[in-house]
Amino acid sequence: MTERRLGIWLIGACGGVGSTAVLGLAALRRGRIDASGLVTALPLFEPLDLAGPEQFVVGGHDIRRASFLETVRELRQRSNVFEPEMIEACRPDLESWAANIRAGSVCNAGPTISRLADLPEAQRADSPRQAIERIQKDLREFRAAHKLDQVVVINVASTEPPFPIDDSHSSLAKISAALEKRQAALPASALYAWAALDLGWPYINFTPSLGASFPAALELAQERKTVCGGKDGKTGETLLKTVLGPMFAHRNFRVLSWVGHNIFGNRDGLVLDDPANKESKVRTKDQVLTRILGYKPQTHVSIEYIESLDDWKTAWDHIHFKGFLGVKMTMQFTWQGCDSLLAAPLVLDLARLALLSQQRGETGVLKHLACFFKNPMGVEEHDFFKQMDMLSDYVGRLAQADSR
Amino acid sequence: MTERRLGIWLIGACGGVGSTAVLGLAALRRGRIDASGLVTALPLFEPLDLAGPEQFVVGGHDIRRASFLETVRELRQRSNVFEPEMIEACRPDLESWAANIRAGSVCNAGPTISRLADLPEAQRADSPRQAIERIQKDLREFRAAHKLDQVVVINVASTEPPFPIDDSHSSLAKISAALEKRQAALPASALYAWAALDLGWPYINFTPSLGASFPAALELAQERKTVCGGKDGKTGETLLKTVLGPMFAHRNFRVLSWVGHNIFGNRDGLVLDDPANKESKVRTKDQVLTRILGYKPQTHVSIEYIESLDDWKTAWDHIHFKGFLGVKMTMQFTWQGCDSLLAAPLVLDLARLALLSQQRGETGVLKHLACFFKNPMGVEEHDFFKQMDMLSDYVGRLAQADSR
Amino acid sequence: MTERRLGIWLIGACGGVGSTAVLGLAALRRGRIDASGLVTALPLFEPLDLAGPEQFVVGGHDIRRASFLETVRELRQRSNVFEPEMIEACRPDLESWAANIRAGSVCNAGPTISRLADLPEAQRADSPRQAIERIQKDLREFRAAHKLDQVVVINVASTEPPFPIDDSHSSLAKISAALEKRQAALPASALYAWAALDLGWPYINFTPSLGASFPAALELAQERKTVCGGKDGKTGETLLKTVLGPMFAHRNFRVLSWVGHNIFGNRDGLVLDDPANKESKVRTKDQVLTRILGYKPQTHVSIEYIESLDDWKTAWDHIHFKGFLGVKMTMQFTWQGCDSLLAAPLVLDLARLALLSQQRGETGVLKHLACFFKNPMGVEEHDFFKQMDMLSDYVGRLAQADSR
Amino acid sequence: MTERRLGIWLIGACGGVGSTAVLGLAALRRGRIDASGLVTALPLFEPLDLAGPEQFVVGGHDIRRASFLETVRELRQRSNVFEPEMIEACRPDLESWAANIRAGSVCNAGPTISRLADLPEAQRADSPRQAIERIQKDLREFRAAHKLDQVVVINVASTEPPFPIDDSHSSLAKISAALEKRQAALPASALYAWAALDLGWPYINFTPSLGASFPAALELAQERKTVCGGKDGKTGETLLKTVLGPMFAHRNFRVLSWVGHNIFGNRDGLVLDDPANKESKVRTKDQVLTRILGYKPQTHVSIEYIESLDDWKTAWDHIHFKGFLGVKMTMQFTWQGCDSLLAAPLVLDLARLALLSQQRGETGVLKHLACFFKNPMGVEEHDFFKQMDMLSDYVGRLAQADSR
Repeated sequence: MTERRLGIWLIGACGGVGSTAVLGLAALRRGRIDASGLVTALPLFEPLDLAGPEQFVVGGHDIRRASFLETVRELRQRSNVFEPEMIEACRPDLESWAANIRAGSVCNAGPTISRLADLPEAQRADSPRQAIERIQKDLREFRAAHKLDQVVVINVASTEPPFPIDDSHSSLAKISAALEKRQAALPASALYAWAALDLGWPYINFTPSLGASFPAALELAQERKTVCGGKDGKTGETLLKTVLGPMFAHRNFRVLSWVGHNIFGNRDGLVLDDPANKESKVRTKDQVLTRILGYKPQTHVSIEYIESLDDWKTAWDHIHFKGFLGVKMTMQFTWQGCDSLLAAPLVLDLARLALLSQQRGETGVLKHLACFFKNPMGVEEHDFFKQMDMLSDYVGRLAQADSR
Repeated sequence: MTERRLGIWLIGACGGVGSTAVLGLAALRRGRIDASGLVTALPLFEPLDLAGPEQFVVGGHDIRRASFLETVRELRQRSNVFEPEMIEACRPDLESWAANIRAGSVCNAGPTISRLADLPEAQRADSPRQAIERIQKDLREFRAAHKLDQVVVINVASTEPPFPIDDSHSSLAKISAALEKRQAALPASALYAWAALDLGWPYINFTPSLGASFPAALELAQERKTVCGGKDGKTGETLLKTVLGPMFAHRNFRVLSWVGHNIFGNRDGLVLDDPANKESKVRTKDQVLTRILGYKPQTHVSIEYIESLDDWKTAWDHIHFKGFLGVKMTMQFTWQGCDSLLAAPLVLDLARLALLSQQRGETGVLKHLACFFKNPMGVEEHDFFKQMDMLSDYVGRLAQADSR
Repeated sequence: MTERRLGIWLIGACGGVGSTAVLGLAALRRGRIDASGLVTALPLFEPLDLAGPEQFVVGGHDIRRASFLETVRELRQRSNVFEPEMIEACRPDLESWAANIRAGSVCNAGPTISRLADLPEAQRADSPRQAIERIQKDLREFRAAHKLDQVVVINVASTEPPFPIDDSHSSLAKISAALEKRQAALPASALYAWAALDLGWPYINFTPSLGASFPAALELAQERKTVCGGKDGKTGETLLKTVLGPMFAHRNFRVLSWVGHNIFGNRDGLVLDDPANKESKVRTKDQVLTRILGYKPQTHVSIEYIESLDDWKTAWDHIHFKGFLGVKMTMQFTWQGCDSLLAAPLVLDLARLALLSQQRGETGVLKHLACFFKNPMGVEEHDFFKQMDMLSDYVGRLAQADSR
Repeated sequence: MTERRLGIWLIGACGGVGSTAVLGLAALRRGRIDASGLVTALPLFEPLDLAGPEQFVVGGHDIRRASFLETVRELRQRSNVFEPEMIEACRPDLESWAANIRAGSVCNAGPTISRLADLPEAQRADSPRQAIERIQKDLREFRAAHKLDQVVVINVASTEPPFPIDDSHSSLAKISAALEKRQAALPASALYAWAALDLGWPYINFTPSLGASFPAALELAQERKTVCGGKDGKTGETLLKTVLGPMFAHRNFRVLSWVGHNIFGNRDGLVLDDPANKESKVRTKDQVLTRILGYKPQTHVSIEYIESLDDWKTAWDHIHFKGFLGVKMTMQFTWQGCDSLLAAPLVLDLARLALLSQQRGETGVLKHLACFFKNPMGVEEHDFFKQMDMLSDYVGRLAQADSR
């Protein structure tokens, strides 16, 4: 059997997350790294026929004049990660895949993101419909040029401000008219999602931006028989909230307050320094506890741009809780993780799992991917371990189906 | 239906954990506190017919001239916990239950524990058999005096040094001879366990001491058709290891090193300052990660007696792990919990659950209680959430059985 | 020699800081506590003839219906500090001094402070001149009633929003006119300061509010031959900045960023939750590093009201610095201090030192008190140890003068 | 005026501290780094005529087959410090200086250090006198080969176990006999010190080993009219103790307990994992607080070898103190510093300052260097800021002398 040829199309390709995912893919192909950090490399997934790193080609959209190599070198210099020898070894892949990058769109992505864009095409004032068609043209050309069997589109761009949805987003019929006429019908993240789903391709939203999280888009996914997943990769402080929160619940500790301060200094941090964009992120970070605990403790989430930290996102959480006989106790943690490095392997995990689901004929929201997201589409469960059970049950069902 | 009358017999009754459990029980009876910290008060347990606080009478053994009231007041003054008004309100229970305390035994409990004993009877050099009989006499008198339907014996005494077991502990037949003759056949913790099981009473070991964790004792439990559980209540740093460890595993992070420093200043801390006694504790704290991760990262566990902290056990853990592309990251946490307050509600939980199991005719090790222990008897699983699933499955099975 | 009789008049008397200072004074008089936390009890001050606790009578203004006893009991219950026995023992002083409390003013103190005021007199819309005269009447009556030789007025009220000063505040002549006519000429904190200085009494500003920190007030102090000091007691995180900052400077480490997050839940915290009031506090906290280091690193200071913490102000600081060969390193600290307890002894220290200075005939700003303040009036030096040298030099000069 | 030619002779030259100092020196010569971390680059020192980086040549002793380049590359790979480009640029210096390295001695340095030695000459069982003469031969040859005006000998080798001194070390006369005969008269660190001082060269002990800290050696320094300084560079946790300790003292806080846990994984850490060697280090770390506070709080210092941390020494300190009205409060800090990078610039500072002192004709212990050492020879003062005053006074005196 010849191996299937697969594509990953990254929105915001040359950002820290995208470039690190690409470097990791290249390094895996060359056997230069072990699988640390890659969830789908766990024994749990052995029964599945997941794609190997050698099957992938990468392309993507970006709004800045940038390249994988440049970003990766910048990460090395500013954040002290990666061996130069490894970058050098992976350079051929990075350079050949960089040739697949096309100019993206900043349509309704807010002024802070617009300001970052230095590609003139990114600023074109197309109608939404025109923008979608332009995106689809790029996608189709990529697929054709590389003779790909499947392509997954993954949004790893910076966070957009919250985008208000209304009745016009409630059905396929209603949005269609708006796409022709109303300039402000959808933000960039949703245009990409629409373009992918409309082609019947899987779409994953690794950010808190709108993407495919509105009724009309979900209807489109069903109609085109494809799959989607999101939103907002769960990589650090929020992951810990969904890990520790259940412990407090199981021990019947009353969480009185949970304060989380996040500081970091990469480009995503710069975008999140705009209160409008930050709002989207804080919303997804701040809801999980109420869902897990069943009541709302006082919470505070801050995200501050501290330039010197670069990609090293540092979070301090202070949890104040009441135990037996009313005694108040405290847990604090500090998490010092490299943001792009935490996110990148999950991007590859999601690519592998979404492509598998689509190939097996699933449609709609991939709920079994909840453990990867801060705000999982279609899932109320935020307990990380219950989410892992959902994923592990899914794998079990597939393995059983295959063994019949 | 008249309510069943139940007893809790505490070994090391007037220590911090015992006295706090007793204060909590009294406060619950009087409705002076909510159920924070009490696991069995969670909705999960509603289907079960668990005993209420008003059904209990307390008694116990101790080796020191002490009382519940004295210990509780000392905790208030030294550790700044409890309202004086609440203590005063609970005083009648504390005083009436204190009358049920009998002199315990320091037999083979090591020199540091012996030195704490100021009751002359505690130092008596009986043969093991004589010691067991003396304990049983105390237990029977307690049951008779209060007309109790059931009594559970729970070890909350200070940690003994590791006790070597050999072939003589391997069966009921072999140990029987030793109990008559060999002064060093069993340490105090095991004599109490033996006394309880031999009477057909449930026994719970909240400490890392030997207790009932040797083959002959388990055989005795089966023979006398009673239940037992242990060892070593999982209350703070180790609880967090079994909560966070699975997260590192599920995300395929490679834990490189996990360092845990514990400091506290209560009487248990004083006993653990003896390297022999500390050894028992460190063993149960240090094994869980290897079981959860499937490999052995470098670990270090220290426990230091710092007098000024009194009951406020403070743990600093530093976790160093490798993520994607070999990048090393760090998580640190500080846990500031009041030791006795963390342990005490679990003692009540275990009493309720063990008495229920025995009443329902179960026998042997109560494996579904694994989530309460650092080193659960008969269970290899250390993932706290998998252990919670075991408990929740047990509750489900009982509820289903009852509904038929 | 008969001992001099002295008064402390507290603005915001029944707040956490005021009430704790009063409890401490009473406890010192009764010998119930040692001098921990009291700077002027150090051997350094032995050569000085500082007043003893038994010489003091307390009075003050407040805008709320409250009492020392009530506040102190609330602190005990909510923040788990103080022995009830000690409060009981000090009760006579607390009650007799409470009789000296008069209704204060919320004039131009901002809406958040106004909202706290439940004494109708506090809201009176007097002209500034009338408000000053009313305050002075209270002050004179206190002095007369208790036959006091000297009275020091100390502002321990909640923080006002920044108050813009202009040309009208630049001289005694110019402000005099404004005081008659312009309702908004001065905020409450400055009215109290004016009242005190105008009587020739010493005035200390323990808050970042305006107080006496404008040219006309300083001119008044000189004219009336009295002394003043401030602003904003240096008790926790900022103290540490002025302790650690010099270390980074002396070792030639380049501070890249210094992030400080403060969380607490007492009434001061509630007031600081108003961005306008918080602004005053953040300003005094955020300037010290630039002065100490000689350059401006990126800084971030947040103050959040987290109710469950009550008086336990918890600060997390993250300091990122560059060492040799450009390597970036990190220091983090967590400070868990009880806000009122940190401030209260300094209030007593400042009272003793200000009264001594006035008695010795000094006039104007007491620069040697810089080590007590976040934003010391008339002093550019923020290095805590250099500030201590200033205080110690002052003591030395006085001791030398006395020995002649 | 031709510039003086100067030498730095490092004992343990190719260890982390030595190699980093050498790399830093080379990078400074090439203008590739700024002076961050170098104390003598502060404006304070401008009045002095300190040597510049271009004036130095490096040599040294080592007991392992190693080179500066190898160690520096290992540091880069394991600890993620240094740009590869910078190492490459400095390579010529590193290689040419490496040619000046000679085989050292492990005489009486304890089994753990002996085990590290892979140069056969290091194990030679000379008499102390023979060992000293061999060392002096190496030193003289270095000086002659490079035509140096002055050479300073600095001990940056791993920590020896405590070495008991007795009457034989009390004078020049008594030790002289012992040096001929008794194999165990002195440990390696003292032989090097003796060799240097006997030649009339300055000697600095950056470690807690014996070095020149015994009466006979100080007598020798006076006799040969040279200078010495030590012991044990103050770089991280202990530096902070001497910075924070004075703050607790000045505020009259009673320190109840101070716990410090240090973890790291470089070669020094491996040596300190031997309890005998660790003992030397803990002694110098644990004494400073008592001296600063004037009483002995409960203290605990641990040092653990955690391999994955490599050169990143991480310290967690927990300080428990009593404030006003007996309320206990807590400060915690975490220090994450790169051990070699913290020490290396101080080695260069000490070289510059020791050479200057000797050139100016000073003799004996350089007490003004106290701020650089955990256990400063001849100085009881441990307050870092008072020590800085001593250094700054020294600079002032010299500047004044020069300006006359």
